[in-house]
Amino acid sequence: MGHPLSLTCGRCGRDFPPDSAAVGCVCGGPLLVGYDFPNLRGRWKKENLAAEPANMWRYAPALPLEPDESVTLGEGWTPLLRTARLGAQIGVPNLWVKDEGQNPTGSFEARGQTCAVSMAKKSGFHKLAIASTGNAAGALSAYAAAAGLEARVFMPRDVPQANFCECKSAGAVVTLVDGLIGDCTRIISERAPGEGWYDMSAFKEPYRVEGEKTIGYEIAEQLGWHVPDAIVYPCGAGAGLIAIWRALSELEQLGWIGAKRPKMIAVQAEGCQPIVRAFEQHARESAFWPGAHTVASGLRVPQSGADSLVLQILYESQGMAVPVSDSHMIDAGLQLASLEGIFASPAGGACVAAAHKLLQSGFLSPQEEIVILNTGSGLKDPAVFSTRFPRLGSGEQDKLGGLITPR
Amino acid sequence: MGHPLSLTCGRCGRDFPPDSAAVGCVCGGPLLVGYDFPNLRGRWKKENLAAEPANMWRYAPALPLEPDESVTLGEGWTPLLRTARLGAQIGVPNLWVKDEGQNPTGSFEARGQTCAVSMAKKSGFHKLAIASTGNAAGALSAYAAAAGLEARVFMPRDVPQANFCECKSAGAVVTLVDGLIGDCTRIISERAPGEGWYDMSAFKEPYRVEGEKTIGYEIAEQLGWHVPDAIVYPCGAGAGLIAIWRALSELEQLGWIGAKRPKMIAVQAEGCQPIVRAFEQHARESAFWPGAHTVASGLRVPQSGADSLVLQILYESQGMAVPVSDSHMIDAGLQLASLEGIFASPAGGACVAAAHKLLQSGFLSPQEEIVILNTGSGLKDPAVFSTRFPRLGSGEQDKLGGLITPR
Repeated sequence: MGHPLSLTCGRCGRDFPPDSAAVGCVCGGPLLVGYDFPNLRGRWKKENLAAEPANMWRYAPALPLEPDESVTLGEGWTPLLRTARLGAQIGVPNLWVKDEGQNPTGSFEARGQTCAVSMAKKSGFHKLAIASTGNAAGALSAYAAAAGLEARVFMPRDVPQANFCECKSAGAVVTLVDGLIGDCTRIISERAPGEGWYDMSAFKEPYRVEGEKTIGYEIAEQLGWHVPDAIVYPCGAGAGLIAIWRALSELEQLGWIGAKRPKMIAVQAEGCQPIVRAFEQHARESAFWPGAHTVASGLRVPQSGADSLVLQILYESQGMAVPVSDSHMIDAGLQLASLEGIFASPAGGACVAAAHKLLQSGFLSPQEEIVILNTGSGLKDPAVFSTRFPRLGSGEQDKLGGLITPR
Repeated sequence: MGHPLSLTCGRCGRDFPPDSAAVGCVCGGPLLVGYDFPNLRGRWKKENLAAEPANMWRYAPALPLEPDESVTLGEGWTPLLRTARLGAQIGVPNLWVKDEGQNPTGSFEARGQTCAVSMAKKSGFHKLAIASTGNAAGALSAYAAAAGLEARVFMPRDVPQANFCECKSAGAVVTLVDGLIGDCTRIISERAPGEGWYDMSAFKEPYRVEGEKTIGYEIAEQLGWHVPDAIVYPCGAGAGLIAIWRALSELEQLGWIGAKRPKMIAVQAEGCQPIVRAFEQHARESAFWPGAHTVASGLRVPQSGADSLVLQILYESQGMAVPVSDSHMIDAGLQLASLEGIFASPAGGACVAAAHKLLQSGFLSPQEEIVILNTGSGLKDPAVFSTRFPRLGSGEQDKLGGLITPR
């Protein structure tokens, strides 16, 4: 009942025909999909969701295709976990973690790619190319495999081994680029026309954000249709942050939530914080961050293709942009794992550290309800946490089974 | 409405009081939990399941505690994926993969440990010890962390790095043992009384199997309450196989399915196939398999504590035990990933290879409906698949972004 009505540039406002194969706007801005929410309102009832499947396709009327047209691996409807023990330690009783590591391919990128690949298939594209810091490529490779389409992946050479391996295992053709995500993006832009590739990179094809917005629908539904006071999001390109914000607007148009919005918190690594810098300067756009480095591979994005949209949301929501050091994000990831049993990606750990920091500074208060996004599983790059846990050699006593306890 | 009524030894039939802290039977057999299914029948209706949460606690009346007593990370209700492209390639249209890699901690062991840890907590135990090939330890560590209990892990020294790292990250005290799972089990048995450890190893405390049986409930529910013709299971200790078989019996007692049973297929590695050997010899018990070796860490179990139960189920179901070489299980894992987008553990790959083998031999037929268990995510040991995908050095042409395509 809710097929896309419009495609509009999120930067310049230019309109494109819906379902068109446009890859970004001529101005370089991202295309955003519009639906007829006034018409959906009243016809689509949140009370009926209980009978829908326990995956993101439960929100099909707000997605660009029907569940039976989708290439699906069962993505979405991940648990929103109450993390009371962590909350007690960082000083906020009402703390939740949305555990996106339980998605197929181990990250929230599965939501975006089920949607984007399904649309690409429906539109008749056969060769799908992506520039990625890792997880989006892993998800694209999996969904392209399931769809019987070709995947062409460009990633920085030092991408985590799990990402490299999952892409290759799914049959993708992988090129490791001596450079960062922006170099990968440029290569695809240059070569896509000649090679016949459809560009699945962030903010190129418009449907990834549509899939990712289901995180926002789920948070609201899982909280009983109320909106938390803050959502803490690890911001690489920022597609998920934009997606969640759009979801909340759509939910209000549907009459399922009111006008309240969470403070949107964008978390970046100290070694790569273009959004933080721009936010501090009250700028409308970010500047390229030179020498980007962080153990959180997904946060190594020196400039987002949608930086202006991300910044606009931070300002509008009275949110914040927070830098976290590598060391703190690992510490906080271990805090989350050891108190709650959630083994998060370093980016997820960064959000825990950021929430703690903002509670200490008073920007967030102990009375507030806070949702932390863990965008992926720690299993996608255990090497980061492994640095804290050297494997000890086997001493005589250790052979007896740990008479001396190795910590 | 369905608390445990009885604890009975699966080997000698001896009874124990329900909720007792017995760790296995005095005869060495595993304890099995009984419920009052005749009384549940009619009162618990499968039609009402639609309103239950999308996790394994939807089957609470057949579990030993209430959902609100559980230490949960949202485990269970994993997708049962129709794998038509793989089916076409191995010659069976009606093929499904139950993707247990989407559980918390990336494996089906989350189901067992949510239940076992919750019961241990309820019973007042504080120190939980486990002997494990890796995934059960990862799950125990996570749930113990969430419960605020101590986890003491014994694993073979060459356990996959993801397992080591997830246990350490969750705060478990880990001892890497110069030996195999049996050596770990023995150390705990010897030291548990003195140390005050509750033994969470397979077939010691009785509630792991209770959690794992929800896989069987889910397969039946997801297939619309019919039973497939075969279930293909990677058999290490075999707890999951026993659990699924028990689930089907319970479902029949509830009147939700009939008397039909699937052929139960136990898949082992060529380098460690005690159950296969015993099955071929029509034996009631297995012999210790010397020199056990396989890339599938979870299948490196030279002798199961419940071998007689596993064998009994294979005979009773007119099933089969199948060995698969390491090379074939990797091949089949890549076949699954590249055709369906499911990045499985080597053990999951072994099941694909076994199904293919049994279709070729005629033991399984193309008209049958087959369910393959992928017990864990490939992300839990990508090193196994990595051997097939060396990272190439960066040549001049590769720097341009793959003008020569590295395959």
